[in-house]
Amino acid sequence: MFSSFDERTMQRAIELAALGRHTTPPNPSVGCIVTQGERIVGEGWHRKWGEPHAEPLALQAAGAETKGATVYVTLEPHSYQGRTPPCTDALIGAGVRRVVIGVLDANPKVSGDGVRQLQAAGIEVQVGLLADAARELNLGFEKRMITGRPRLIVKSAISLDGRIALANGQSKWITGTAARADVQRLRSRTSAVMTGIETVLADDPQLNVRDPSIDMLGRQPLRVVLDSKLRMPATAAMLKLTGETLIFSGAPLSDVSASVAGKAGSRPANAASVAHELRQAGAEIVAAELDADGRIDLDFVLAELGRRMCNDVLVEAGPTLVGRILQLGLADEIIAYVAPVLLGPDARAMADLPALQTLEQAQRYTMHSVDRVGDDVRLTLRRRPEAP
Amino acid sequence: MFSSFDERTMQRAIELAALGRHTTPPNPSVGCIVTQGERIVGEGWHRKWGEPHAEPLALQAAGAETKGATVYVTLEPHSYQGRTPPCTDALIGAGVRRVVIGVLDANPKVSGDGVRQLQAAGIEVQVGLLADAARELNLGFEKRMITGRPRLIVKSAISLDGRIALANGQSKWITGTAARADVQRLRSRTSAVMTGIETVLADDPQLNVRDPSIDMLGRQPLRVVLDSKLRMPATAAMLKLTGETLIFSGAPLSDVSASVAGKAGSRPANAASVAHELRQAGAEIVAAELDADGRIDLDFVLAELGRRMCNDVLVEAGPTLVGRILQLGLADEIIAYVAPVLLGPDARAMADLPALQTLEQAQRYTMHSVDRVGDDVRLTLRRRPEAP
Ligand SMILES: NC(=O)c1ccc[n+]([C@@H]2O[C@H](COP(=O)([O-])OP(=O)(O)OC[C@H]3O[C@@H](n4cnc5c(N)ncnc54)[C@H](OP(=O)(O)O)[C@@H]3O)[C@@H](O)[C@H]2O)c1
Ligand SMILES: NC(=O)c1ccc[n+]([C@@H]2O[C@H](COP(=O)([O-])OP(=O)(O)OC[C@H]3O[C@@H](n4cnc5c(N)ncnc54)[C@H](OP(=O)(O)O)[C@@H]3O)[C@@H](O)[C@H]2O)c1
Repeated sequence: MFSSFDERTMQRAIELAALGRHTTPPNPSVGCIVTQGERIVGEGWHRKWGEPHAEPLALQAAGAETKGATVYVTLEPHSYQGRTPPCTDALIGAGVRRVVIGVLDANPKVSGDGVRQLQAAGIEVQVGLLADAARELNLGFEKRMITGRPRLIVKSAISLDGRIALANGQSKWITGTAARADVQRLRSRTSAVMTGIETVLADDPQLNVRDPSIDMLGRQPLRVVLDSKLRMPATAAMLKLTGETLIFSGAPLSDVSASVAGKAGSRPANAASVAHELRQAGAEIVAAELDADGRIDLDFVLAELGRRMCNDVLVEAGPTLVGRILQLGLADEIIAYVAPVLLGPDARAMADLPALQTLEQAQRYTMHSVDRVGDDVRLTLRRRPEAP
Repeated sequence: MFSSFDERTMQRAIELAALGRHTTPPNPSVGCIVTQGERIVGEGWHRKWGEPHAEPLALQAAGAETKGATVYVTLEPHSYQGRTPPCTDALIGAGVRRVVIGVLDANPKVSGDGVRQLQAAGIEVQVGLLADAARELNLGFEKRMITGRPRLIVKSAISLDGRIALANGQSKWITGTAARADVQRLRSRTSAVMTGIETVLADDPQLNVRDPSIDMLGRQPLRVVLDSKLRMPATAAMLKLTGETLIFSGAPLSDVSASVAGKAGSRPANAASVAHELRQAGAEIVAAELDADGRIDLDFVLAELGRRMCNDVLVEAGPTLVGRILQLGLADEIIAYVAPVLLGPDARAMADLPALQTLEQAQRYTMHSVDRVGDDVRLTLRRRPEAP
C-alpha cells in the first residue's frame, strides 16, 4: 500500500514535527511535506501555539506546485474552525490529489472527520503510515483529548539499588551531567513539571528549562507544587524565574491552619496572608480538594491540569508523592536514570509503597526503552496496555 | 600496522575462542587461525582442560599449508611445558612466518616469553590486534594469573527500586524467563557459583547449569556456600546434582557449637556428625578462618578458590553476603537484571551497606554495558580502573 518513498517522506515529516516538540504545547506537534512525484516541493511544521499549522506552511512553501500534489502529514488535519481555519479547507483549496496521514486525531469528537472531509472533496486519503512513530509525538495530547487529563511521567534519578537521596537528604548528584542535561530536554517537551512541597523545602529546585541550546521561544513548563498546608516559602527559587508557578493548597484557603504558620516563625500568622505573599511573589494558588488522607487529591489535580490544557506532566518529586502516584496507578510512564553506584538500605527509596504479600500484587510495567546517557542508563517504563 | 583482513581474521579467532568459554575453565579460552595470503587454511579453538590447545589444532587442520603461514591467536602462545607441550614449539616446528597475537598472557612470570621465543626463531610477531576484545575472553584467568585470586561477579535480579525479594522472602520471580535463561549462560562461563547459607535455607537453589542447549561437556561450576555454623541441610537440592559443592564453615570443625545443632531439632548433636552427614551427601567442607565479625573471612575464601584454579566466581546471594562483598570492594563486576516493577521500601534491598554521610563516600562503578534481556534489562557495572 505504501511505497518506500512514502515511508521515507513520512519519516522526514515525523522529524520535522519533532522540531516543534518543546514549543507546540498545548498543541500537538505536526510535520507536513508536499510532493510532486518523488520530489519534495514544500515542507512545514507547527512551531508554536497560535502560529500557523504544518499543512498551510507546507502548502505555502510549495507555492504553485500544490495542484495534484501528494501531501504527507503526521496527524490527521483538523476540520473545524479553531484559532486557525480548518487545515482540510487549505488542502482542498490547494487542489492536492492525495493525502497520507500518520495517525488520526485522537479526539473522538473529531477523529476521522478530517479524513471524511478530504474524501468528500475527492481527495485520495491513506491513514496509518508509520503510525506508531507518528503517535509517539503526541501521546500526552492524545491522552488529554480522550480523557481530559494529562499524561503523567514520573522521573527519578536513582542509584542501582533504587535510592534517590541519602538518609540526610543529600541527592546532589547521584547521576552525571549527561543525565541532567537529558532532564532538560525531557522538561522542554512537557506542559508542566510537578513536585511535592518537601522537595521544594529540601532542594529549592528551579524546575525550569535553562539549557541555552534549547530555544523555548519564551515558553516554560508550568511549575506545579502540591502543598496542602501552604508551606511554600515566598522566597522559593522557582518564583524568581520566568514562567508560572501553580500551588495546589488545601481548600478552602482560609482554613489553612495558623499552627503551620506558627511553626514557620517569621511567616505571617494566617493562611490568607501567606497566600497573599506567595501571590505577590508571582505564584497562583488553587484551593484543591483533599483526599481521605488529607493530601491534595490527585484526581482533582489532574482534572485541573487537563482543564489548563496540559498534555504531558513530568513529576520530579520525592518518595512520598511518587509513591502515591504509583500506588494509585496514575503513572503512564516512569523514566529512571540509573547511576552505577550503590547507596545502601539506609538511603531514601524512590517510592514509598505499601508492603506486598505476593509478587503478583506488584504493579508491572513494560520496559519501553533503554538508553545509555553518559555513564548512566535511562530506563523508560510504560503502563501495560490494558487488556481489552 | 594491521590490514582489514588481519582484523576480520582476529575477530573470527575471538569468536572461535568464545565457543569454548563454558568448558575451558580453569584454562583460558583461545582461538587460532592459520592463513596463507588471505586464505584461511586452518582453524582451532581450545575446548576443554586437558585437551589440545588452539594452536596445535589449527596447525593440524592446516596440514601441509603451515610453512610460511600467518597465524592469528587470541592469546600469547605458552612457552613452557605444562600438561601440553609449549605451543611456541609447535608454531616454530610448523615453519610459520608471522604470528599475530590478541593479548599477552597475563601471568607476569610468562608474559612476553612466548613472543620472545617465537622471535628468537625468526618469526615475525605482532601483538595487540583487537586486544580489548581478546582480553574480555579471559578476564578471570587474567586476574587469577596476576593476583592468585578469582574475579568476583555479583549477580542480582532486582526490581527498578532495587529489591531482590519481598519482606516475606518471596523472590520467585522478579525477572522474566529470558533473564533466567541468561543467568544459565552466565553461570556456564564461571568456575564457581557462590552463595550464603541464608539463600540456601530460603530458596534451596541448585546453582547449576541445566539449560540443555549448553553443552558443558560434563563440567559444572563448583558450588560454594558460606556457612559459618554449618547449618546447611544434607538434604539440600544442590547436593543431589552432578558437580561439586564446597562449604566454607567456621574453623575448626570440632568447634562448631552444639547449640546450632540444638536449634535444628533433628540434626545430630555435634558438628563432627553434621559434617559427616554433609560429606556423605557429597559436600566438601573447608574449615575457614573467620573475620572480626565472626563471618567466614572472604579473603580466605578467595585465596582458597584461587588455589583451586577458579577464574570467575559468580555470587548469587542475598543482601547480607552481597553487601559484605561490595563493602569490602571485592566485586570486580556487578550484573543486575532489572525488572520493570516496583516492590516498595518494605521489600529486601539488594545489598546491606552501611549508611553514608555524603555521596562522595559511595562506591562508584562504571556502566560497562547495557543489554535488553526479554522485558528486563541487564546492567553490567565494572570496578573503576584504579588511578595509576
Ligand atoms: N533523585 C531524584 O530524582 C529526586 C527528585 C525529587 C526529590 N528528591 C528528593 O526527595 C526528597 C523529598 O522527598 P519527600 O518524599 O519527602 O517529598 P515529596 O514527595 O517531594 O513531597 C511530599 C509532600 O507533598 C505534599 N503532598 C500534597 N499532596 C500530596 C499527595 N497527594 N501525595 C503525596 N504528597 C503530597 C505533602 O506535604 P503536605 O501534606 O504538607 O502538603 C507531602 O509530604 C528530597 O531529599 C529530595 O532531594 C530526589
Ligand atoms: N533476587 C536475587 O537475585 C536473589 C539472589 C539470591 C538470594 N536472594 C534472596 O536473598 C534472601 C537471603 O538473603 P540473606 O542476606 O539473608 O542471605 P545470604 O547473603 O545469601 O546469606 C547470608 C549468610 O551467609 C553467611 N555468611 C558466612 N560468611 C559470610 C560473610 N563473610 N559475609 C556475609 N555472609 C556470610 C552468614 O550466615 P552464618 O553466619 O550462619 O554463616 C549470613 O547470614 C532470600 O530471600 C533469597 O530469596 C535473591
